[in-house]
Amino acid sequence: MLSNTDGAAPAPVFTDVEAAARRIAGHAQRTPLLSWLELDRRLGTHAFVKPECLQLTGSFKFRGAYNKIKSALESHEEVPGVVAFSSGNHAQGVAAAAGQLGVPAIIVMPEDAPRIKIENTRALGAEVKLYDRYKEDREAIARAIARDKGYLVVPPYDDPAIIAGQGTIGLEIAEDCAKLGVTPDVVLAPCSGGGLISGIATAIKARSPEARVFACEPARFDDTARSLAAGRRLENEGSEKSICDALLSKSPGEITFPINKRLLSGGLVATDEEALAAVAFAARRLKLVVEPGGAVALAAALQGRAPKDARTIVIVCSGGNIDDEMLRKALAN
Amino acid sequence: MLSNTDGAAPAPVFTDVEAAARRIAGHAQRTPLLSWLELDRRLGTHAFVKPECLQLTGSFKFRGAYNKIKSALESHEEVPGVVAFSSGNHAQGVAAAAGQLGVPAIIVMPEDAPRIKIENTRALGAEVKLYDRYKEDREAIARAIARDKGYLVVPPYDDPAIIAGQGTIGLEIAEDCAKLGVTPDVVLAPCSGGGLISGIATAIKARSPEARVFACEPARFDDTARSLAAGRRLENEGSEKSICDALLSKSPGEITFPINKRLLSGGLVATDEEALAAVAFAARRLKLVVEPGGAVALAAALQGRAPKDARTIVIVCSGGNIDDEMLRKALAN
Repeated sequence: MLSNTDGAAPAPVFTDVEAAARRIAGHAQRTPLLSWLELDRRLGTHAFVKPECLQLTGSFKFRGAYNKIKSALESHEEVPGVVAFSSGNHAQGVAAAAGQLGVPAIIVMPEDAPRIKIENTRALGAEVKLYDRYKEDREAIARAIARDKGYLVVPPYDDPAIIAGQGTIGLEIAEDCAKLGVTPDVVLAPCSGGGLISGIATAIKARSPEARVFACEPARFDDTARSLAAGRRLENEGSEKSICDALLSKSPGEITFPINKRLLSGGLVATDEEALAAVAFAARRLKLVVEPGGAVALAAALQGRAPKDARTIVIVCSGGNIDDEMLRKALAN
Repeated sequence: MLSNTDGAAPAPVFTDVEAAARRIAGHAQRTPLLSWLELDRRLGTHAFVKPECLQLTGSFKFRGAYNKIKSALESHEEVPGVVAFSSGNHAQGVAAAAGQLGVPAIIVMPEDAPRIKIENTRALGAEVKLYDRYKEDREAIARAIARDKGYLVVPPYDDPAIIAGQGTIGLEIAEDCAKLGVTPDVVLAPCSGGGLISGIATAIKARSPEARVFACEPARFDDTARSLAAGRRLENEGSEKSICDALLSKSPGEITFPINKRLLSGGLVATDEEALAAVAFAARRLKLVVEPGGAVALAAALQGRAPKDARTIVIVCSGGNIDDEMLRKALAN
């Protein structure tokens, strides 16, 4: 199913994204491509938003998780269960995908994760295994479960089937643009470990080789932007904080970075304040609830950081799992 | 274009809705039909939401306004400008539709309308004429403008072209349900003067005669529910108040009521508190910003007031133009 690229890591190719699209059809939400007069006017060009906050479980993560588990089931692997470690969107995406496919799921979450996220994950049918984030290693716990129970590990981003699943967003963008008779000149999407943006770029560049795709990151968590500029994987400092809790990975992935190095046109950055202003813009003008990390691409666009010569720009809003308090704060400014 | 029914008033028929759909194609937002695991679980059946809060100008009103103005232009009428009276969503819909069609617009609005709605209407290029809602008659003001300037009046609901335009929502629901292989057993939509629900019912009942369509109204503004039960048009008391500011018409329309009497299965009601809880549910779970009036159908469904035997229920969320303060209030509970 997966082909190798020039580099050492197995990178998914366009046909893997197409296969993922067939798997998730009728199971994931087919999110629309939306445009607004206000957004066009504000950006001075024709803009579309791909609202993955409307995806099942409130973020794009369901797509990759479903593709990963379904691919394993199709290849007649024994999948007695799946295990993932996440305190947020990936946890819910894996829980929902496993639930739809009738596979037990264990999610390893820190014991101090927000109660609502633990409850949501349990409500989706997953078993939640809590750990002490100061004393225990979540990856070691997940690996032990995988070894002892024979469970399939569903990694958050550095996995070809996960990347191909997230890439279905790029494929849908390409399909919907084609229907409308427009070309996506510039595509912006949030980036943490790089699974989403590498998947999107794989699909977009296959259909529109001239399109420029940019990874968007929170300030001080711009490891992908800096790594792209340096040509090698760089890490973020460990001591920084951001309200973009979905985008705090330490460095680009081993599999995702070579793809991004090959396909991306660069990285854009938005501060926490700019992300929060984009959350407010999305709620007031687009009528979409977007979390700060999910709004960094919109924030970068609103700040005028996308190339000015794009006739058509597509902005991915990747998730909407924001606490009431944070949304209220965004609306208070 | 428009055919007469048995009654005195000219009612649009299904082919009028199809013609409206051709007119708005590529101009209005093609809103998706969305579903969520949480909503299905909460309602105990398979549910879809038609999020018209994502429509241009934040409500369904753009559809009818565009169809009305475009129809007039197509029939070679001289349209030097358009005039409408509205305190809210209709104003923005008319302003945007007129702007897209290059026709000047004057909107007659009460001085005490929400600031955001007045500002948005001006930002869309319309001239806003404010009036005192306690001393002046907005219809008389609009009629005077129409007479003096030869402007076309774009009524909020009691007009065949407006009804046909709003009916495109029902057509899209029918088309998307057909693609998914499901039948919309029950359709719920907010109702004020009845333009939206009568248009939707015209399309839905043409495609799925067995479907049951319900008008949803705020408590104490349930003139359509009571009129349907009585078999004749009844008025609301003038002294009541509601946070559902989009749904405060005094009585069913002359043209809309005969259609609704013929096609609807009844009326459902939600209190202001229930509407506000639905606003919070939409923001937290569906990641959609919906205004209280736009959420009354969702509120009625969440309160268990839809028929229990529906295998598939479709809920129209008709608008998202909510003040920051009201949304923050909803999220504080």
